[in-house]
Amino acid sequence: MYYPEPIEHLITNLTKLPGIGRKTATRLAFFLLNANRDYVLELSKSLADIKDRIRLCSTCFNLTEKDPCEICTDEKREKDILCVVEEPSHMMVIESSYPNHYRFHILHGVINPLEGIGPDDIRLNELKERIKKEQIREIIIATNPNIEGNTTAHYISEILKGYNIRITRIAFGIPIGGDIVYTDPQTIKSSLDNRKDL
Amino acid sequence: MYYPEPIEHLITNLTKLPGIGRKTATRLAFFLLNANRDYVLELSKSLADIKDRIRLCSTCFNLTEKDPCEICTDEKREKDILCVVEEPSHMMVIESSYPNHYRFHILHGVINPLEGIGPDDIRLNELKERIKKEQIREIIIATNPNIEGNTTAHYISEILKGYNIRITRIAFGIPIGGDIVYTDPQTIKSSLDNRKDL
Repeated sequence: MYYPEPIEHLITNLTKLPGIGRKTATRLAFFLLNANRDYVLELSKSLADIKDRIRLCSTCFNLTEKDPCEICTDEKREKDILCVVEEPSHMMVIESSYPNHYRFHILHGVINPLEGIGPDDIRLNELKERIKKEQIREIIIATNPNIEGNTTAHYISEILKGYNIRITRIAFGIPIGGDIVYTDPQTIKSSLDNRKDL
Repeated sequence: MYYPEPIEHLITNLTKLPGIGRKTATRLAFFLLNANRDYVLELSKSLADIKDRIRLCSTCFNLTEKDPCEICTDEKREKDILCVVEEPSHMMVIESSYPNHYRFHILHGVINPLEGIGPDDIRLNELKERIKKEQIREIIIATNPNIEGNTTAHYISEILKGYNIRITRIAFGIPIGGDIVYTDPQTIKSSLDNRKDL
């Protein structure tokens, strides 16, 4: 005994979303059955819209409606610095702390041999081309401070050795407002290794 | 600084779902951005489908594609007993433990004065009409064992007093496989009050 086919179909589709099992999917399906018709049709349309209207910027690989994206065409940003990030969401975080300042290059992944992701699977060739074409003077590598992110950062610094540009890595240490007592040993170590003169 | 408008729009729509805040909605939106196009369009269509193809059975108020629903038109079920439940999902639970046995009547709610839901807001008039029209001999009230469910059960038994039918309530007690030690006092009380001769 199952629900009518359209409800079953919706539940099956919802369970494919991350973190949503059959129980949650069923709860969502019944919420939607009782929800305002206009809202459900709008949700339906907004799902189709992200596939129909969103693409990647051919310059920085940001998600965008128009190509090149608004960030790449913003004349007020630093022209000769590129901030290299793993994902569009990481770019958003940097953008919100330094609004309208940097240009970006989004790799769409990190080097991860265990998952079979090599240098050619992320946007590294495009990065090299941009550095030449846009006369970049510095790249700031803002990948995550984990094995994959660090590996990718080192790989980038290796392949760009002959380019005569400054290559920097964002700093890792105790977060602002954090407490030394509750900070893990590796962060403390990074914080000591990267100490600055006062 | 926000994501492109179609992504923002999807995130806003997803946050309207129960239990989904902006962080989860953003995670789902990015999952969908990276997901297979066919899957996302199918999810989109299945959302529209539940609004376009699902309606309530005009007899029992079950969710159905055709009216009357498959349960109401199933000749093999008990003809003169109706099982009264709060919601279609409650019907499903009973159906799965007693397949193809009972007919149902779905109230779509319970009496809840605090939320302004009175007897006229749930399908009680339709229940009275069915009892006469379908020559019902017994109704089994399977509303939840909480204040609203019990109030509704008592209200139904009051309004059906002149109908010369058997009115029963499902039993509440220690669940099968449960442990007396871990059972709450009210359930134990119900289990004692409703004891049966061996």
